[in-house]
Amino acid sequence: MPDAETTDTVRIDELTWPELEALTKAGPPVVIIPVGSLEQHGPHMALGVDRVLPQAVAERVAARMGALVAPAVAYGYKSQPKSGGGNHFPGCASLDGDTLVRLVRDVICDFARHGLTRIALFNGHMENGWFLTEAADLALRQMIAEGVSGVRIVKLGYWDFISPETEATLFPHGRPTWELEHAAVMETSCMLHLAPGMVRADLIPDDPEADFPPYEIFPADLRPIPPTGVLAPAGSASADKGRAVIEQVVPDIAAALARAFTE
Amino acid sequence: MPDAETTDTVRIDELTWPELEALTKAGPPVVIIPVGSLEQHGPHMALGVDRVLPQAVAERVAARMGALVAPAVAYGYKSQPKSGGGNHFPGCASLDGDTLVRLVRDVICDFARHGLTRIALFNGHMENGWFLTEAADLALRQMIAEGVSGVRIVKLGYWDFISPETEATLFPHGRPTWELEHAAVMETSCMLHLAPGMVRADLIPDDPEADFPPYEIFPADLRPIPPTGVLAPAGSASADKGRAVIEQVVPDIAAALARAFTE
Amino acid sequence: MPDAETTDTVRIDELTWPELEALTKAGPPVVIIPVGSLEQHGPHMALGVDRVLPQAVAERVAARMGALVAPAVAYGYKSQPKSGGGNHFPGCASLDGDTLVRLVRDVICDFARHGLTRIALFNGHMENGWFLTEAADLALRQMIAEGVSGVRIVKLGYWDFISPETEATLFPHGRPTWELEHAAVMETSCMLHLAPGMVRADLIPDDPEADFPPYEIFPADLRPIPPTGVLAPAGSASADKGRAVIEQVVPDIAAALARAFTE
Amino acid sequence: MPDAETTDTVRIDELTWPELEALTKAGPPVVIIPVGSLEQHGPHMALGVDRVLPQAVAERVAARMGALVAPAVAYGYKSQPKSGGGNHFPGCASLDGDTLVRLVRDVICDFARHGLTRIALFNGHMENGWFLTEAADLALRQMIAEGVSGVRIVKLGYWDFISPETEATLFPHGRPTWELEHAAVMETSCMLHLAPGMVRADLIPDDPEADFPPYEIFPADLRPIPPTGVLAPAGSASADKGRAVIEQVVPDIAAALARAFTE
Amino acid sequence: MPDAETTDTVRIDELTWPELEALTKAGPPVVIIPVGSLEQHGPHMALGVDRVLPQAVAERVAARMGALVAPAVAYGYKSQPKSGGGNHFPGCASLDGDTLVRLVRDVICDFARHGLTRIALFNGHMENGWFLTEAADLALRQMIAEGVSGVRIVKLGYWDFISPETEATLFPHGRPTWELEHAAVMETSCMLHLAPGMVRADLIPDDPEADFPPYEIFPADLRPIPPTGVLAPAGSASADKGRAVIEQVVPDIAAALARAFTE
Amino acid sequence: MPDAETTDTVRIDELTWPELEALTKAGPPVVIIPVGSLEQHGPHMALGVDRVLPQAVAERVAARMGALVAPAVAYGYKSQPKSGGGNHFPGCASLDGDTLVRLVRDVICDFARHGLTRIALFNGHMENGWFLTEAADLALRQMIAEGVSGVRIVKLGYWDFISPETEATLFPHGRPTWELEHAAVMETSCMLHLAPGMVRADLIPDDPEADFPPYEIFPADLRPIPPTGVLAPAGSASADKGRAVIEQVVPDIAAALARAFTE
Repeated sequence: MPDAETTDTVRIDELTWPELEALTKAGPPVVIIPVGSLEQHGPHMALGVDRVLPQAVAERVAARMGALVAPAVAYGYKSQPKSGGGNHFPGCASLDGDTLVRLVRDVICDFARHGLTRIALFNGHMENGWFLTEAADLALRQMIAEGVSGVRIVKLGYWDFISPETEATLFPHGRPTWELEHAAVMETSCMLHLAPGMVRADLIPDDPEADFPPYEIFPADLRPIPPTGVLAPAGSASADKGRAVIEQVVPDIAAALARAFTE
Repeated sequence: MPDAETTDTVRIDELTWPELEALTKAGPPVVIIPVGSLEQHGPHMALGVDRVLPQAVAERVAARMGALVAPAVAYGYKSQPKSGGGNHFPGCASLDGDTLVRLVRDVICDFARHGLTRIALFNGHMENGWFLTEAADLALRQMIAEGVSGVRIVKLGYWDFISPETEATLFPHGRPTWELEHAAVMETSCMLHLAPGMVRADLIPDDPEADFPPYEIFPADLRPIPPTGVLAPAGSASADKGRAVIEQVVPDIAAALARAFTE
Repeated sequence: MPDAETTDTVRIDELTWPELEALTKAGPPVVIIPVGSLEQHGPHMALGVDRVLPQAVAERVAARMGALVAPAVAYGYKSQPKSGGGNHFPGCASLDGDTLVRLVRDVICDFARHGLTRIALFNGHMENGWFLTEAADLALRQMIAEGVSGVRIVKLGYWDFISPETEATLFPHGRPTWELEHAAVMETSCMLHLAPGMVRADLIPDDPEADFPPYEIFPADLRPIPPTGVLAPAGSASADKGRAVIEQVVPDIAAALARAFTE
Repeated sequence: MPDAETTDTVRIDELTWPELEALTKAGPPVVIIPVGSLEQHGPHMALGVDRVLPQAVAERVAARMGALVAPAVAYGYKSQPKSGGGNHFPGCASLDGDTLVRLVRDVICDFARHGLTRIALFNGHMENGWFLTEAADLALRQMIAEGVSGVRIVKLGYWDFISPETEATLFPHGRPTWELEHAAVMETSCMLHLAPGMVRADLIPDDPEADFPPYEIFPADLRPIPPTGVLAPAGSASADKGRAVIEQVVPDIAAALARAFTE
Repeated sequence: MPDAETTDTVRIDELTWPELEALTKAGPPVVIIPVGSLEQHGPHMALGVDRVLPQAVAERVAARMGALVAPAVAYGYKSQPKSGGGNHFPGCASLDGDTLVRLVRDVICDFARHGLTRIALFNGHMENGWFLTEAADLALRQMIAEGVSGVRIVKLGYWDFISPETEATLFPHGRPTWELEHAAVMETSCMLHLAPGMVRADLIPDDPEADFPPYEIFPADLRPIPPTGVLAPAGSASADKGRAVIEQVVPDIAAALARAFTE
Repeated sequence: MPDAETTDTVRIDELTWPELEALTKAGPPVVIIPVGSLEQHGPHMALGVDRVLPQAVAERVAARMGALVAPAVAYGYKSQPKSGGGNHFPGCASLDGDTLVRLVRDVICDFARHGLTRIALFNGHMENGWFLTEAADLALRQMIAEGVSGVRIVKLGYWDFISPETEATLFPHGRPTWELEHAAVMETSCMLHLAPGMVRADLIPDDPEADFPPYEIFPADLRPIPPTGVLAPAGSASADKGRAVIEQVVPDIAAALARAFTE
């Protein structure tokens, strides 16, 4: 459980309202909203990976830079074959795109109405990406309409902050696309480091990369999807590699957020 | 942190997909979705109370009866003065009604599409109630349209299961309405028992019940709202009272669910 | 027919536009919107009770205080077993929650755009309550966006204004919850007073209070629902009791509105 | 007040549920939903004309053919300059198009779910037309999805049933377009016959037809709109002419409905 | 193909962004959005008529007055029996009303956000009319909310600009209603002039006007619909008549737009 | 103008309904819907590039395999800085995500209702991707609800079919990400081949790749965006390269579609 080792004080839902009010007196802190999913992550990882990872990164970034972490959005957009194996796997429970947009838009807007105008969306689920973009855009438009000024929203996926050096450690033989890096070396390593109780280490598969045609079919053609739901080899995952990722991306993300909200 | 003492295995997001598949082979287990809010709970309790309590009850009920607990919905409908103090307090971040409806509808539907057709909504936030009713109704209608049969949804608030005996223990001088029991004796006692780290015990207020006129005004008239945000006396709260509530309602809810899903 | 004895001049739809314009020259009068439903009310009352009662109260309040009554919303949210017997009874025709929200929001907004910024929602149907709250909130937000200032909305159920004295008259042996007071003593008495043509006096049932479990099931479990659709005894209803209610609540509501819109 | 002279028994909201059930035992009667608006109708007629007229026609048609009349929809789509004078006049309170669509769709669907599958929409407000078409189409689609069969919906405007002979009586010098016949001879005559209390006979204007360019501007160009809001001469209106219209169209509409629902 | 003879420079999608920027330096030009449909037009004309005609008129009007033409909306509202033969004909592919509203609203708003605040909607499909009205109204409202001022929208159908003289040429024996003039003399003539490659001249039918009852049925009663889908005689169509229409309406529309946007 | 050289017969809007009916007698042909945008494409290309390219590919693929091309969707999702330069450039006019979803969903559904159940979405605008995925998913769900069987939808971007050999020709020094390949070598080459009239060849920029931080900011940070709106060098573009792309991808896409719709 990643929650156990994190600091309570960065989580908004663990603060009282006067505590939160005191923390925001000097200006709005950055509020990080982790956005995940409930999605299969192979025979070796629990369904909550996409929520656990951005939340753990968020809590560490927040502790480092004085930000706060809002409750995570635990359901995301529908898993797709090429980036998550597909929504047909047991345990996937997903939102329509517009539902996700409205949910994130509403949360951003209501934080902003309360003066918390600096919002960071930490995405843990590839399929959420464009709906978070739309949520951010609609939230800005709504805040303009209501006369709430100064709203700024940053959206990121922690994996995009992995440096070339860390990437070389993770993938000595070359990285698959991030889409295929589903339940594979990077995610498995981070989970082994952050939440080993959610990994069945003896079941980590090491099958080759999935091979999809250059288009998508609806309803999905299940044949190219690996039966495990893992889209790239995970056999070389390790807690050490996970630590390397986290220890590198956390300060880099904190620094990036600091710049993004001050410039 | 209430999570620490619960059993991991009842949480869907801590299962792998083959583990979940194995658990559902003999028929769909009940899936409990806790629905909370991010809402002020006085100077003495953290903002996440309405998510923590139904989740903790859910995990205990699930462990007892072989049910599963889905990730909680951590944001809810807008806090109202008469039942939550009002959405203007720092830290409140709420959803529009239709957003909450769509969110819960989508989650129910997607569980049902995967064969998890027995759903229980555990509400922890008074204001969510009617939107959960609508979510359940729309989910049923959608499942009829898609030809998914056998869907049954139970909606409850754990407080409605408090027996007259337990109520007498909690409120020896009589109970306020459940609407006014916001951040007061019942919730504070349960939190002292389940998640004492989220209670500032030295700050528990004991002000008298709030007194509201028999109508509502929009925008809210802030004058009848107690400055603490606590709507009824909380001074007599204790961990023992909380334990009494939990130990009584958990088996009663488990028994009720067993009946509700088999008859 | 309750319309017959009311004063035409308080109904907006009976005014010409220059008459309305003249009435609003000195500042916006309160505009009352009755919101009802088409819902079974037992073997003894017509389906329109929830529209007739708030409209009749509204017309009397308006006459007393110089307010106006807008056309009633005649359809409401879906009847629920515990507060209305359930939507499966013949003659129920209900709206989705979001439809009701949009309808009332639009009407409020368009009155406000025309300068009629003081709106009172008179609800006659328990199930409408939270959707009216949302309609009021969304209307305010929209008016802020459009730059229409000074909008104030009051929402009430006339039954919440029944004084302890009147209540003792109505319920000498104690009152059921308002949810169960469906087609029972209070509503039947008021209808006998206001619209006796819509009551079949010889068919008034006097069955005991319905007994529901402390949760809801979707689709509804029909077994605990009384076959009549009446949720509490109605046998002691009388036109005199109805007159007592109306004569007490009308001036009290008028006084409350006057305060609510001037403070 | 037109209500006074109509027969109570055709109004669904004046029936108890067992009475309604008995009436539908032999097959679903036609259910007529009058759809009006709250819209200016000149200095001489009340704002509710567009609701009163289709409701009065509906009650007479229903009495003649054994149909039922559902509660009217009292708010309609936004008044347009060329067919209603425009939404800027005092007292106009209108719905967004999608709100009207959803409202009428929901009512049709819920009647149909209860077995009342024969629906007639009686429109009294030109601007509602296409939104009623969409409501009917979406209701049919939804009923197909839910497996409710046999739904048939008829939509009409009573004015389209005025025969050439009656038209010659009304307009001896030729009829303006129905769009311009707003608050003019036809509507005024019908109101003088059906609801004289809602007509200020001494204020009936007789200005010439309004002259609009062959396009529309948003926001509306107010200059071509007659200050009265009346778009064609009304001076020759009379109760006799109104009686002629009603006495001719009522049997013709009843006959048309009988054919439309049996063929 | 009508595109071949039009001037490229009036089409926005054929301009580079610096070219467009240069064209708007002196103030926003009128931007014309043609709105059509994909709908049967008899055995003799292609499905795209309703897009081709308003686009061709738009390009000529734009060239004359210095306006620009935006990409056409190629899909429209559902074909109705009385004005288009009905949506059941092969090749009809239509939008829900709200989809069309949102589409046109979004395009208007985004042009306006970029300073292109003078918008003309050229409708080519009768069924689109009221949804364009709603799109214009909602766009204005949204622009008010966002603080974008000076937005003006003109909506027109080119056929409403046909002069009595031209009409006499087209219809020497009298004009059917514009609703019935579907795929008939006027449209066929214009296509013969503008896009003869989309007309099968040897297949032009000359059947009499369709005869519909004065109401609509859903689902549509197909019996009164001519099997060809043509609602009025087209046999007298000619390219010369089409040229007469185009040569008359283009300057008249250009003049009307110039007035509408300057007054 | 790319239209000039294409074959008329593959365009649905150039067919009459009997012609279309005849073409579909032997089973539904594949219907290709090009989806583009109105978006800046640098100082050297017209705003319509993203519509022109997929439409031209679609017409060639259709001619080769006996498919049909539906009218293009000419407006798309909001241009983003990292893949399109950003929506703030002159001439961008974009849709909200949900609008695009509904538009494409409606078109797919209505084709399918008419028996055209084999749909291919040819996307020309990176930003549309996930909204097309959602449109396809919602269309399938709706068709299931309506009982329309056999619907299959393929979604593709033509650039994903560029072979390694063609890629080596286009990018001898290595390819930027497809996101950055906006208005750069590939698009410019294809336009020089297909629609040279929409390219200002003397203005083709050759600036280096844009350099963005690994996150997004809302409102957009304009500083990293090249002033031209071109995100990668375009200087080496040529009509020959464009021909190479088209001549390779057209048969490959046709073959892929044939497989995708028959397996």
